[in-house]
Amino acid sequence: MQNINNPTDLRKLSPEQLPVVAKELREFIIDIVSRKEGHLGASLGVIELTIALHYVFNTPEDLLVWDVGHQAYGHKILTERKDVFHTNRQLQGISGFPKRDESKYDTFGVGHSSTSISAALGMALASNLKGETEKQHIAVIGDASIASGMAFEGLNHAGVTDANLLVILNDNAIGIDPSVGALKDYLTSVKEGKNPKDNNMIKSLNFDYSGPIDGHDFEALLKELNRLKHKKGPKFLHIITTKGKGMQLAEEDQVKYHAPGKFDKETGEILPKSEENLPPKFQDVFGHTLVELAQQNEKIIGITPAMPTGSSMKFMMEAFPQRAIDVGIAEQHAVTLAAGMATQGMVVFCNIYSTFMQRAYDQLIHDVALQNLPVIFCLDRAGLVGEDGATHHGAYDLAYLNCIPNMTLCAPKDESELRNIMYTAQLGLEHPIAIRYPRGRGILLDWQQPFEKIAIGKAKLLRKGSKTAVLSTGFIGNNAAAALNEIENPELFSHYHFPFVKPLDTDTLKTICENHEHIVTVEEGTVIGGFGSLVSNFCTENNHTVSVKIIGIPDVFIEQGTVSEQQQICGIDVNSLKTIFSSR
Amino acid sequence: MQNINNPTDLRKLSPEQLPVVAKELREFIIDIVSRKEGHLGASLGVIELTIALHYVFNTPEDLLVWDVGHQAYGHKILTERKDVFHTNRQLQGISGFPKRDESKYDTFGVGHSSTSISAALGMALASNLKGETEKQHIAVIGDASIASGMAFEGLNHAGVTDANLLVILNDNAIGIDPSVGALKDYLTSVKEGKNPKDNNMIKSLNFDYSGPIDGHDFEALLKELNRLKHKKGPKFLHIITTKGKGMQLAEEDQVKYHAPGKFDKETGEILPKSEENLPPKFQDVFGHTLVELAQQNEKIIGITPAMPTGSSMKFMMEAFPQRAIDVGIAEQHAVTLAAGMATQGMVVFCNIYSTFMQRAYDQLIHDVALQNLPVIFCLDRAGLVGEDGATHHGAYDLAYLNCIPNMTLCAPKDESELRNIMYTAQLGLEHPIAIRYPRGRGILLDWQQPFEKIAIGKAKLLRKGSKTAVLSTGFIGNNAAAALNEIENPELFSHYHFPFVKPLDTDTLKTICENHEHIVTVEEGTVIGGFGSLVSNFCTENNHTVSVKIIGIPDVFIEQGTVSEQQQICGIDVNSLKTIFSSR
Repeated sequence: MQNINNPTDLRKLSPEQLPVVAKELREFIIDIVSRKEGHLGASLGVIELTIALHYVFNTPEDLLVWDVGHQAYGHKILTERKDVFHTNRQLQGISGFPKRDESKYDTFGVGHSSTSISAALGMALASNLKGETEKQHIAVIGDASIASGMAFEGLNHAGVTDANLLVILNDNAIGIDPSVGALKDYLTSVKEGKNPKDNNMIKSLNFDYSGPIDGHDFEALLKELNRLKHKKGPKFLHIITTKGKGMQLAEEDQVKYHAPGKFDKETGEILPKSEENLPPKFQDVFGHTLVELAQQNEKIIGITPAMPTGSSMKFMMEAFPQRAIDVGIAEQHAVTLAAGMATQGMVVFCNIYSTFMQRAYDQLIHDVALQNLPVIFCLDRAGLVGEDGATHHGAYDLAYLNCIPNMTLCAPKDESELRNIMYTAQLGLEHPIAIRYPRGRGILLDWQQPFEKIAIGKAKLLRKGSKTAVLSTGFIGNNAAAALNEIENPELFSHYHFPFVKPLDTDTLKTICENHEHIVTVEEGTVIGGFGSLVSNFCTENNHTVSVKIIGIPDVFIEQGTVSEQQQICGIDVNSLKTIFSSR
Repeated sequence: MQNINNPTDLRKLSPEQLPVVAKELREFIIDIVSRKEGHLGASLGVIELTIALHYVFNTPEDLLVWDVGHQAYGHKILTERKDVFHTNRQLQGISGFPKRDESKYDTFGVGHSSTSISAALGMALASNLKGETEKQHIAVIGDASIASGMAFEGLNHAGVTDANLLVILNDNAIGIDPSVGALKDYLTSVKEGKNPKDNNMIKSLNFDYSGPIDGHDFEALLKELNRLKHKKGPKFLHIITTKGKGMQLAEEDQVKYHAPGKFDKETGEILPKSEENLPPKFQDVFGHTLVELAQQNEKIIGITPAMPTGSSMKFMMEAFPQRAIDVGIAEQHAVTLAAGMATQGMVVFCNIYSTFMQRAYDQLIHDVALQNLPVIFCLDRAGLVGEDGATHHGAYDLAYLNCIPNMTLCAPKDESELRNIMYTAQLGLEHPIAIRYPRGRGILLDWQQPFEKIAIGKAKLLRKGSKTAVLSTGFIGNNAAAALNEIENPELFSHYHFPFVKPLDTDTLKTICENHEHIVTVEEGTVIGGFGSLVSNFCTENNHTVSVKIIGIPDVFIEQGTVSEQQQICGIDVNSLKTIFSSR
């Protein structure tokens, strides 16, 4: 691999040399990811495919789109980024996902799943219009991603075009968690030889189907890709791979080794982290609290679209397998399924990452809010998410939910408040509610206290001062509190926590306006359309002459880095807040 | 039909009497829709199915969900709403779609497509948990709607459950416009007997498949529904119907008779409307302008998700069939397809109704805005839409797009400005743009003027005054102008038109703040998070002491009625605006 910096170098090798490249590429990835962290299993599973694609096709002229992009490390290393791969997912390093700005080989930015077929089809139709009818356009998509509705829409369209589109299904029967659904069962039956090739679902959609073939067998891959390279129209190749291939522990525990953190590159063993005396992750608070509530309230149901581990819905799935459902990568379905259940009196906790709720926005409006069904949305990973970067921030939910009638929006400031709003919500609400909380650890060691009912729509005074009122919502309020603890002239500053962005506590807000010269709002969401925006609107509508400074995520996309670095970029870290508060 | 007010009455009849009911029900619908307008063809096509479902199943105990709901007139009439059916789609009348508030027989509110499988599955799983294992749950979905990704997600999940779910595919090969896509071709081949039943796509998803059967044949329907009624688990019945069945002209021109307006109930002939000296519809301005631009710029592409007629994309499809694409009900795919094309230098006009853009929100953020691809979104039916009601208003787009980095948002105030922003956009922009315009007619008879380039982000002074500044964006600005024309003390009022909500013209805004005591903003969008909200934020951030009153669509769902009635409800009609302006 020493002399391979790009696909041109790769193509100088004989086919017989490729297994050596594969071995070295695996070792390279394992070496760096073991030290720098990142996604491991997915890339190990497509090493042979990655090499074969760049070897057979004329990239970057032929256009290659990786779905989601967890599996694209080998692609990055083979396409001029070997030397910078150690900066993966770091601030000012390379992105953990394919990204157009980064390389001409990254034809389409990814991160969210199931976009590759549509994107590659768009490219292919454009090529046809430009008369570039020899060009190939390749979408590599996993079996978890292809089950999402958007992928079906792409296939359904592609099948009636003459686009030079090759869809490669990388079937390893797992996404981040094991794949689910009827399509997965069908694919399994195909793999096991129970479906004759000519009785094929994909053929029904008018694709030239081939496979399944062993995705770790270079001979089979090269033969089939070379055949497909010269075929026009929509084609579909089904390959079988093993996630984590080539590293025994990663093959054996594919969920854990999706993104294992630091590990011993020789043995594969994950390096222990000291977790003593650390506050819990919000995810675990959610998961354990849901089980606790479900033990008392038999109407409680949990729904997750493909994130049982990430969201900790797995605890509910273990405790109440009939009452907790992983629907796969199907956010749209998840939300309307929740609505359907709610019509029958079920108390549904639908846990969706904030960034993925964007996939179910219409269903939330049209099926939940419009019908005023009291579904309880738990928006995980709200705010800045760190190393996953721009594609994954939960930056927009406050803004895109604020404008929807009937919604209640809650941003608890700690684990205890998360527990209590979950408790309060399952007692019965008049409206749907979205509860947003961040990725990672909270602040309370002693979080598992008895439940208390929360008054919907009430703000809380945390500190009383005379001149400037800091109004915060959500977990970021702890940064504001820390900044105020360090500030000169603390007597000038009030601090109010607004657990509810909607309904806004206008009574308290009126009092605040009447008793302060300045307001500074702090939220871990966009400065446009969120909490601060509502506060400002209230002031100007009611002729309060108090100034309002809105602090939050600015109107740009925030790249990968640590959460702490991203907070600094946004100006919502403790030091930045201290400076802003002091200037008032 | 005289003695039939509910399904219980219906069930007293013998099967032999049902064709008479069908005939009378058709006549009843034709009689009222011919005079009161509404959706015609879809309901005529499912008369036999509607009667058979209520005859065989124990509604409302068995739960029946109609997808989209265009076809539910027969259902409404048979379920206690015969006497109020003449108020269909009117203010304070019954909704044009099934609606939970309206009847216990309307188990789930619909309007947008492809939600029925998810909703009915949610109900079915809830029934199982409650031990109601005899209950049946039925989703009736058309072949255009089932091709949308969300429906696939529902099927994929249902296939691995033991839910008592019956999906009935009402296959008439048309939605509002003819169905498209590979699935449609497949279904056609099934109908034509080219696919043996045991080689079946739906069976691959683990459904008990039966059909296709003639959906106008009572004997076949009753037999099959009676069989399915007693079967547990997920079932799929494929029926073939004719849209507009029983009215010759409606069968012959199914697109026109989807919602024909007033017509002669004897002959079926559509009553002529006087269109002389009327300004054009914005839809036609869009359609003709796109063709005009495409003649000059060969990179222009048009994309519509299933609305070629409604959006007038049909003109582009006729003029440049290779460069205009109807992708079917697949908004998610439409947007990412557009992004893929844009990466290859295509200038893509992606026309989506504002309310349906909610379905592609994530794709707009993740695939277009994040990659800063200059896709041109034309958001049709922005603002209030009249008789379709709460499900269809384009009320939220300004708010949900405002918070997304890189977006340009334009709301032209008339046909000429729509043309010129389309012209300007295709010359090449640095960012994606969303251009929003309302349903229906504009104000300019002489609209087809030579193109002029528009300066992005610049506001326009329309009227100069001394005390109160009215700031409007979009077509609703004409109401503001009319109100100001009638007002006392006109010298006190300025009027500025902001064609761009984003980027906001802060230079002009600063001048406005410095020269007025009051600002009133007017927009046909939510008062939360839209144009007025940005104006307010600007004022409070910059310590301007001017008051800001935000006028727009209030934070409630607005029911069906005429646009004029809905404007009054929102307080954005000319009279209401005059009152508000005068009070400043």
